[in-house]
Amino acid sequence: MRLIIGNKNYSSWSMRPWVLLKELGIPFEEHKVLFDFAPGSPFYTALQGVGPAGRVPVVVEADGFSVWDSLAIIEYIAEQHPDKAVWPRDARQRAKARALCAEMHAGFGKLRGLCPMNIEADLKALGPKFLAEEPGLVADLARIDAIWSEQLAAHGGPFLFGEFGAADAYFAPVVMRVTRYGLPLSAAAHAYAQRVEQTGAVKAWVADALQEHVWVAEDEPYRTAPTMG
Amino acid sequence: MRLIIGNKNYSSWSMRPWVLLKELGIPFEEHKVLFDFAPGSPFYTALQGVGPAGRVPVVVEADGFSVWDSLAIIEYIAEQHPDKAVWPRDARQRAKARALCAEMHAGFGKLRGLCPMNIEADLKALGPKFLAEEPGLVADLARIDAIWSEQLAAHGGPFLFGEFGAADAYFAPVVMRVTRYGLPLSAAAHAYAQRVEQTGAVKAWVADALQEHVWVAEDEPYRTAPTMG
Repeated sequence: MRLIIGNKNYSSWSMRPWVLLKELGIPFEEHKVLFDFAPGSPFYTALQGVGPAGRVPVVVEADGFSVWDSLAIIEYIAEQHPDKAVWPRDARQRAKARALCAEMHAGFGKLRGLCPMNIEADLKALGPKFLAEEPGLVADLARIDAIWSEQLAAHGGPFLFGEFGAADAYFAPVVMRVTRYGLPLSAAAHAYAQRVEQTGAVKAWVADALQEHVWVAEDEPYRTAPTMG
Repeated sequence: MRLIIGNKNYSSWSMRPWVLLKELGIPFEEHKVLFDFAPGSPFYTALQGVGPAGRVPVVVEADGFSVWDSLAIIEYIAEQHPDKAVWPRDARQRAKARALCAEMHAGFGKLRGLCPMNIEADLKALGPKFLAEEPGLVADLARIDAIWSEQLAAHGGPFLFGEFGAADAYFAPVVMRVTRYGLPLSAAAHAYAQRVEQTGAVKAWVADALQEHVWVAEDEPYRTAPTMG
């Protein structure tokens, strides 16, 4: 199985299945294509025939069969690897984990719009400023904190449904945003964010992101140069 | 099982699981709460304790267990009713159906932003105008047309994966947008849109929507009164 991803520094959608596969020990071949949104770019060429939505991540099997969209990819991984607890084993917990991932998938517009993932950047000065100006971001952050705190209380941690699974992979890029933009969390949520950042998979992704050194103007609404951070 | 939905005229997210359940003949209790986005409104009161994301649709079981978000609800329905082909039976077709639903769930921003669902309205003059002004809407519509046309060609119809299922329910609100805003489609895609509109479930939803007669200012960027349409 080949996983096509974008830049590790910026691509929050790519991070989700990559971190899930890595943390669960499921082998895959990484195929990174750097963001380049010009028509006919190598980025779009790599997606031809396999990623009709024009976005990463995309899974491609040896015979050319492909699955796109991070959530559909995670369901595909879960079906292909029933021995791994991608979703919780309990049907109702599984439904809840899916609800949290789907809520993340389509929601949190202010957090995603104002705080695009940028792992190498130090934008800690911006979070508090945005929070003072944008009630929608306050609401998004409060909901994130509530989700994490309630799930940790319900299952006793260390992760959202006990062991590391799809929901944690889905929130890993949120951890990146919260820490990079200096967004404040409750003690329980903060401890969870640290725990996610210390998983082997997230550490490996972050290490790769820090070595990438590729500047994508479309993903840099705030910095003027890579060294500003 | 109780399904909490919003206004049938406006709530595209509510329409998806409602239409799926209805068309597959799965019994449920409808609980409609009219949109009212003021803090403490009856809308938010109905969601207390069951819909923490503050949005509809929400499924609530007799013992209070709840699932929110249309995509998680559809997965829950699929698990609860393995006798119904909510998703295609074939694993790869199932992965593809999920990819299409997930792509819809998080994408098509221009179509969703410019053309909010408004079943009772005749806004056919607006679609061509928007298409002339917004390349993003042209791209969204081209992708919708390609998805429908390719799936119909692959399976021979009548629906996206043969028989009516989750993917068709997921695109039903898109059918509403395309027809109400006068967005042009290829012949094959147009025929599919007509077929979806003629299913018993969609006809029933539309009939209810037309009798609703409730005006929600937040969902009316274009009309100034209900009778303008």
